[in-house]
Amino acid sequence: MKLSHIEHIGIAVKSLEISIPLYEELLGLKCYAVEEVAEQKVKTAFFKIGDTKIELLESTDPEGPIGKFLEKKGEGVHHIAFATEDGLQKTLDELSGKGIQLIDKTPRKGAEGMNIAFLHPKSTGGILTELCEDPSKA
Amino acid sequence: MKLSHIEHIGIAVKSLEISIPLYEELLGLKCYAVEEVAEQKVKTAFFKIGDTKIELLESTDPEGPIGKFLEKKGEGVHHIAFATEDGLQKTLDELSGKGIQLIDKTPRKGAEGMNIAFLHPKSTGGILTELCEDPSKA
Repeated sequence: MKLSHIEHIGIAVKSLEISIPLYEELLGLKCYAVEEVAEQKVKTAFFKIGDTKIELLESTDPEGPIGKFLEKKGEGVHHIAFATEDGLQKTLDELSGKGIQLIDKTPRKGAEGMNIAFLHPKSTGGILTELCEDPSKA
Repeated sequence: MKLSHIEHIGIAVKSLEISIPLYEELLGLKCYAVEEVAEQKVKTAFFKIGDTKIELLESTDPEGPIGKFLEKKGEGVHHIAFATEDGLQKTLDELSGKGIQLIDKTPRKGAEGMNIAFLHPKSTGGILTELCEDPSKA
């Protein structure tokens, strides 16, 4: 198993319209992409900093995962995503073999065309953890 | 203002003894340093991944900032720290001038000999934000 870097930090926000200019001012960076991920019921906005991204997540449906998170916990860090270097499926199998509970047993599509899978926070010290693989490098 | 990368993500944990082996297994990495920061009433453990670190934070005093955080919110992301490239004091002055509320108006010492300062979560979309400067590069 080889995780190369933190691919992004996912931050739940109430409104991209408010949070994009706030983060642009705070980070001194421009948001470089806004994308809707219909399956996840979110609209995302990305900032690049070093080898990591900040992914702001606005809910498009109160019953979606970000809608429920905001309702329960308010704005804040929703998940941390790590980039895998030697195959997402292989990494999932290896973690599962170590007894780590998976939300996704096989990869699915996330924002920016990435293959992604979530690990269960029960197995990761309470932090929702995502693994990502860039299919162009897989 | 120039933030170069995410210096670290600070994660509050109940016990380093439990969390260090968990994160070692999860990330496939070895913890490279454990350090007590008496002023902050924490013991920290570091993992390096890409240009970022994961900093686990165990409280040494229930009345300290991590003790109170764990009591209120449980284990999870406590703060995100960004590395400044053109002077921490200058960056703080610039952010303050933009109306961003500071916890530390001047830098103080953090773990690993870094100069650090916190911004107030009220001004940063609810996320406790730290700025860091490596004094050897300042």
